[in-house]
Amino acid sequence: MTSLTDSLAAAPGAEAGRIFNFSAGPAVLPLPVLQQVQAELLNYRGAGMSVMEMSYRSPAFDDIVNGAEGDLRALLAIPDDYAVLFLQGGATLQFAMAPMNLLNPAASADYVLTGAWAQAAYKEAGKFGQVRSAGSSEAGGYSAVPAQADLKLDPQAAYLHFTTNETIHGVQWQSEPVPPPGVPLIADMSSDFVSRPIDVSRYGLIYAGAQKNLGPAGVTLVILRRDLLERVPPGLPLMLDYKVQASSKSLYNTPPCFTIYVVGLVLRWLRDLGGLPAIAQRNTAKAQVVYDAIDASGGFYRGHAQPASRSPMNVTFRLPTEALDKLFAKHSAAAGLSGLKGHRSLGGLRASLYNAFPHAGAVALADFMREFQRTQG
Amino acid sequence: MTSLTDSLAAAPGAEAGRIFNFSAGPAVLPLPVLQQVQAELLNYRGAGMSVMEMSYRSPAFDDIVNGAEGDLRALLAIPDDYAVLFLQGGATLQFAMAPMNLLNPAASADYVLTGAWAQAAYKEAGKFGQVRSAGSSEAGGYSAVPAQADLKLDPQAAYLHFTTNETIHGVQWQSEPVPPPGVPLIADMSSDFVSRPIDVSRYGLIYAGAQKNLGPAGVTLVILRRDLLERVPPGLPLMLDYKVQASSKSLYNTPPCFTIYVVGLVLRWLRDLGGLPAIAQRNTAKAQVVYDAIDASGGFYRGHAQPASRSPMNVTFRLPTEALDKLFAKHSAAAGLSGLKGHRSLGGLRASLYNAFPHAGAVALADFMREFQRTQG
Repeated sequence: MTSLTDSLAAAPGAEAGRIFNFSAGPAVLPLPVLQQVQAELLNYRGAGMSVMEMSYRSPAFDDIVNGAEGDLRALLAIPDDYAVLFLQGGATLQFAMAPMNLLNPAASADYVLTGAWAQAAYKEAGKFGQVRSAGSSEAGGYSAVPAQADLKLDPQAAYLHFTTNETIHGVQWQSEPVPPPGVPLIADMSSDFVSRPIDVSRYGLIYAGAQKNLGPAGVTLVILRRDLLERVPPGLPLMLDYKVQASSKSLYNTPPCFTIYVVGLVLRWLRDLGGLPAIAQRNTAKAQVVYDAIDASGGFYRGHAQPASRSPMNVTFRLPTEALDKLFAKHSAAAGLSGLKGHRSLGGLRASLYNAFPHAGAVALADFMREFQRTQG
Repeated sequence: MTSLTDSLAAAPGAEAGRIFNFSAGPAVLPLPVLQQVQAELLNYRGAGMSVMEMSYRSPAFDDIVNGAEGDLRALLAIPDDYAVLFLQGGATLQFAMAPMNLLNPAASADYVLTGAWAQAAYKEAGKFGQVRSAGSSEAGGYSAVPAQADLKLDPQAAYLHFTTNETIHGVQWQSEPVPPPGVPLIADMSSDFVSRPIDVSRYGLIYAGAQKNLGPAGVTLVILRRDLLERVPPGLPLMLDYKVQASSKSLYNTPPCFTIYVVGLVLRWLRDLGGLPAIAQRNTAKAQVVYDAIDASGGFYRGHAQPASRSPMNVTFRLPTEALDKLFAKHSAAAGLSGLKGHRSLGGLRASLYNAFPHAGAVALADFMREFQRTQG
């Protein structure tokens, strides 16, 4: 395996001893962004202080948060009638906030159950109102998303919720489910947000934790069609009230300023490299390198997801035995391929290949897979 | 004013063009901490990645969060029967979480109203149960905290809530109010947490946003006596459930990892300089420099807080006219004394002098105050 370590040392991702980081999140960030953060850390652009030390009511921070919002709006072509919010608490808090704000007691909400995260959203929502399953891929071990024709949709539903990409199971919707007329579509996009173009106008609410494609953990992006604010009931905790957050432009209380700053740098990096069409093309090509290695292995590597539902973000696979899974995780880590051990609930291996993950890392993994099969298979 | 700018350039806080930052929060951080963050930004201690990119389930991050908790426990001598949590949402979310978790529907909670933040906590708690005022200093313009003898305490209260330091009004409790036997004491310590020794065993719950004395915005410290977890009702949002957070050691979902890392470095810095007795001594001496300038001004500068309730964290004062307040804010900012404008709800000036604020900055402000009075008074 030493030859691989040598090639790694020369790889683009390896500056300053950095390794290939396949972590599912928090995850690898663009090196130029980290370098800029480092350069500006003690004194942000002549402000005489770090962004960490800056009043969130200062003009300098206004520029940071407005710049991040502007770049996100440009990248996703977010229509003007949508609010963009920078919240806290991760997707798990949105699992509660969505129903608390938008699920009328007289109605029921539809959830499509495609894996661990959709299940978690469904279970949490059940605390705050009526929910029902509009379709599930549990019987198939969450290896694919349901077909539109197989969904059983409630035409009176308060909303239809789905999970665009299941981080643990490695399955992704290729296009969003179509809700009945008038039923808002809600998506947890935590693990594929800004990884490909989407049509925001098809959604009522989109939310995503930052720590996959956007930046450090600690901020959650929310995109909300403003007419839905009329549903917000009185008496919610201030921080959980979309109306309060939207009317204060995410600055009701002190936001996670530094995290928002890094997210802004990542969004600018994304715009500069050509936006969502460009990154989608990169992501597809990058994941294909690993899926090709799986498909060419003669069954030694078995992908979890069915081909039509394969995620370019999280490639899940296993080896013939659990012992080999473990050996693979151990040897790959020793070779500078970090974070490949699968989630404890599914086992096997998982390669997370978010936006900032370098193509060279996917090539290094595919090389390693072939070499491992040759020596251990 | 040029002589002052010259002296500023040579002051200890002025490395690399850094200015004296009197911001009320986010606020100045220790320069050695920022320097360490900068040095470790691309590759944390040989991990091959930034802390921003690190799995929150990794051994390296375990060390970070356990180290931060350990240092906090050592600094405050936190007894073993208290949980330490790193949450999100700021003190404003705790305003809701405290009553949602701890206010039995059959009981009522007592709040001492000493300023804008105590009022905000009181108002938010009213959404989730019965609350009553146990004392208020509103009649005096929130310029002092009530005496113990003036509190009207409910012996059956679910808890007694107070705000140790009012960031906007600049008043601080010199010692905590004493609740009736069996009534847990709850404190919002956001703006004076770890600025002086306290006896944690007197409290049922302590919470504090990090962005004053602890680190960047985006994490909230919670210290909770574990027996109170028995009160937590079923059905709360997962992220707002102290029981869920305590049983998962703050790692129920992805925590704000990088922010926790910086908090850990600040806590270590605090331990290294001698802990809470040492920092309290520094803080008192530092604030005294500014209060002395107020007291020696013959009434030109008028402190908002009554002397017995003066906060060493936030020194609030005003000049003879609003026009002079404005001129002072403008000229001081031009002289490298940043963030002195008072909160919009109180007006006047405010000098926030948290743990990391250098003594030289207080001296520079006092010099500026004398010079301003000489030329404009």
